Order: sequence, then C-alpha cells, then structure tokens
Amino acid sequence: MKSVFLNGQIVPGESATVPIFDRAFLYGDGLFETLRVSKGQPHLWDEHFTRFSAGAKVLGIALAYDSTGLRKEVYKLLDANGSADAVLRIQLSRGVGPRGYSPREAKSPVLVMSTHPLPTPPPSWKLATTSFRLPPLSPLSAFKTGNKLGHVLAKAEAEEKGADEGLLLTDGDHVGEGTCSNLFWIQLQTVCTPPEQAGILPGIMRAAVLRACEQLEIPVRQTTTRPDTLDQSAGVFMTLSTFGIVEANILDGQELSRSPITTKLREYFETPPKAVGVIL
Amino acid sequence: MKSVFLNGQIVPGESATVPIFDRAFLYGDGLFETLRVSKGQPHLWDEHFTRFSAGAKVLGIALAYDSTGLRKEVYKLLDANGSADAVLRIQLSRGVGPRGYSPREAKSPVLVMSTHPLPTPPPSWKLATTSFRLPPLSPLSAFKTGNKLGHVLAKAEAEEKGADEGLLLTDGDHVGEGTCSNLFWIQLQTVCTPPEQAGILPGIMRAAVLRACEQLEIPVRQTTTRPDTLDQSAGVFMTLSTFGIVEANILDGQELSRSPITTKLREYFETPPKAVGVIL
Repeated sequence: MKSVFLNGQIVPGESATVPIFDRAFLYGDGLFETLRVSKGQPHLWDEHFTRFSAGAKVLGIALAYDSTGLRKEVYKLLDANGSADAVLRIQLSRGVGPRGYSPREAKSPVLVMSTHPLPTPPPSWKLATTSFRLPPLSPLSAFKTGNKLGHVLAKAEAEEKGADEGLLLTDGDHVGEGTCSNLFWIQLQTVCTPPEQAGILPGIMRAAVLRACEQLEIPVRQTTTRPDTLDQSAGVFMTLSTFGIVEANILDGQELSRSPITTKLREYFETPPKAVGVIL
Repeated sequence: MKSVFLNGQIVPGESATVPIFDRAFLYGDGLFETLRVSKGQPHLWDEHFTRFSAGAKVLGIALAYDSTGLRKEVYKLLDANGSADAVLRIQLSRGVGPRGYSPREAKSPVLVMSTHPLPTPPPSWKLATTSFRLPPLSPLSAFKTGNKLGHVLAKAEAEEKGADEGLLLTDGDHVGEGTCSNLFWIQLQTVCTPPEQAGILPGIMRAAVLRACEQLEIPVRQTTTRPDTLDQSAGVFMTLSTFGIVEANILDGQELSRSPITTKLREYFETPPKAVGVIL
C-alpha cells in the first residue's frame, strides 16, 4: 500500500487510522476533493483548493495550510509514492469532540491525503436514472462534504441496473447530476447543463467546460429538463475531475445520439490552445 | 477512557481506530443509534434494534448480530465499563472498499459500540429556528445515517444564538425536527407533531409518546405548522432517547406557554403504568 499524508506526516497507508470518535466517521462531519495528477502536477489545483478552503470555512473547520503550503505537501506525497499519474484525494475532518452534534469543543481537525491509481478513461458510459434525489440547494451544495450516502446508494442502484453511472434527479424530478459527475446535453447546437440552483455540485470540470465553450464560441444554457427528454438531445456527456469528459452512449437502455460538439470539447481538453492555459 | 466494542472485541477506547479509508469516514456511509441505559438496561432496545437493522438493510450493509446476540454484547460492554447508567452509542460502517462511491467491493463492515456519561436532564430548553432544512422524505429519512452535517451545523447555529437546541425546517418552511430531538406542540388539548412525510426522523421516543397519548386518551394530530405559530400554542416539548421529554420554554427569544399535558406525559414516563410496560 502507498504512503499517505496524515496531519503533516507521510506515513504508511496500512497504519493510517483515525479514532472511532472522529466526527467524519460519526456524522460525515468533513469534506474532500478528488483531483487528477498527471506528469506530477495536480490539475486545476487553484480551483480545487479554492472550493476546499471555502467549504472548510462554511463548516467552520480550521484548515492549517494555504494553497502554496498544501501544494508543497502534495508534491512530497507524490514523490514518496512515485505517483506521476494518479488520483489525489484530500480530506478534512473536524476530528474528535465530545459526544453529540455540537461541534463546539472539537478543535483538532484531521487532514488526510492519499494517492490512488489513475483508472483508464472509459470510452463511453451507460447511464441510468436512479430513485435518489439531490437535496435542494443549501449552503452545503457547493462542496464535496462527507455526506454522500445518497450518492453511494445511487451508484449502487445504477450498477445493479448494469449502468456505469447513475443520475440523481432534483426533488422536482428534473435532471440534477451524476453520482460523481456533472451532466451536460446538447440541443440546437447549445451545450446545456443544470444550474447551481438545482442543488448540484458546481464541479471543477463543469466550470472548465463552460469556460471552454466560451473560448470555442459554443452557446451555453444553464437549464434543466426531465430525464426522458435526454434521448431526444443531440448528445449527452458527463464531466469529472478524474476523466475530464466522458460521453454517454446509453441512458436507461435507450441509445443516445453522439454530437460532434462533444468530440470538439474532448479534443480541446486533450490539446488545449496555449492562449487559455487550461491543462487537462 | 472507557472500553469500546469494536467488531466483536472489547478494546480500550484510546486504541480503537478505523482506517482512513473507512467509508463512514469518507462518505458517512453508515448508520447509528443512541440509547439510554439505566440500571444496566438499554431502554426500548427492540425499537432501536429494529430501526438499526432495517437501516442496515436499506444501506445494504451486513449486520453480523441479531437482536439477542447484539444485546449480549451490549451487556458485556456495560459490564466492562461499569456503566449501569449511561448513553450507549452503536455504529455500523460499510468499512473499507476501493476508492469511489460504489459500495460493491466493500465487504468488511465495522460495528462499534461505546458508552458515554449520562448527562443531567435539563429542566427545559431554549430553542432557536435555524437556516438548515431537512432533506425531503427519502428512503434514508427513517434512519440515523452517518450523514448528519446539516444537523451538526444547525446545532452550531442554535448554540451561537444562545439556544440549547436548533429547529430544522422543511423545504416548505414548516417545522421539522430538532437537531437531536423530535418536536411536539400542544394546541386545543391536542398533542401535535410533524408527520413522517415531512422527512423527519421517526424517533423512538416520539413513537413512545404517541403510544402514551393513546394510553392516556390525549388526542394526537400529526400535522405541521410554521415556526412563528409555535409561541401561540399551549406548550412545546422535544423528545429524545437520552432525556425522554424536554419542555421548551423559549423559542427564538419568545417565552412559550407551559402545558399541564407536557407535565402529565413526563410523569407518565417517570412512573409508567404497569399495563403498558414502557420503561423510561
């Protein structure tokens, strides 16, 4: 097993533990980020760090590092693990406190970082809508919090249906997001995606795709729709930090159209124009 | 520190840890129960175990004990800790699996039990409504899952306002529940409480109070209301396993009426009629 970063130390993964009274273990009282590392560089670091530190502020958990400081620790960990191409996971927990929900006396946060093998990007995904609903927009929607049980069970439901990824709908039965990805579809040459008001996670790759569309002069619309209209669209794709863009070819057993706009966006991220400086 | 139960063993609490890759730590992928123990007996054991094992089934996590088997382990732990009067916490986590939301390969659940000092019952509570909303009714609403960040932050908000307990509203701005308690109010000699459809946790003490009302021939209505109408009611109380019934005397700085029905219910639980056999 690889080494991990645990509160400032690089330690063997096997021996990296937290007390059973840690509040992330008890209540999901923490948050995390998942980044892609390639050629030794964490992609879109500033965006991930900004979201992570904003989340820590909303949760009221002290983050002991600034962006530069934490990035240095990331390099140390990547070095220790020889991980030039990897998935990097960063997690902050409120740590141990007295029994009960009150976070008042819990003052020793736990910061963990781990590296994981970078999976082979899938050529396309089969999607399935699931019975799980996104919670309505809240101050927590904007962050990858430790409260992901709905997403876990949605993923399980999708897998039981033979799909690669599951869609969570909004409380109003409109499309929301994938369990670990944001949803896009193409209609009338326009790239559509649900707005943040739907309670979706404002994904880092989602934002990068919206910026890319602007650069490429592809019209964008933040809107929503019912899941059974997606198979009439010109194409559907998902975005996530690990893989970038993954085209969806099936939704609930229906074949989906494949749009040249998806291909154009994928190519953009594979060979970004120098002027933009987006690396993925 | 007291001893704890960890996967079948009684071990010192100091050394009881879980891997940083445990899914309850990562995603809140687990569930728990909190029980009151007095004179060496866990209160309302059957009800707590029934909810816990039903939750494990919904989450798809194997629970290695039946009610009798787990109760035996509880007695061993209480013995080891000399805890005749205590709070007992039981937690089940899905354990470690590969990175990502899919629970498919995570097959080594973690079962933890710990005892905690029984706090002195408060004479009454100051309540504050909070900005946090209950997620709409879902298959997860019925259980104490590891996803309690909203309740944690609602408790923090209430404490910042100088209150003892915070109210979470529903998405439609009606009253829902307390962070760690169910809400009741009295109107026209009727005991009112939000219905399960509001997305509340169907609390064990809540159910015991509803049964007690039937026994005492007090009319009950499962309904909902806006928080600013509670101060016009004849009385407000909260229920939770640790304390039973706690009367609320203040809501958002407004003094609340105190109803003889609350007193009657408290007395009922202090000296239950033998015919009912409810112990608390």
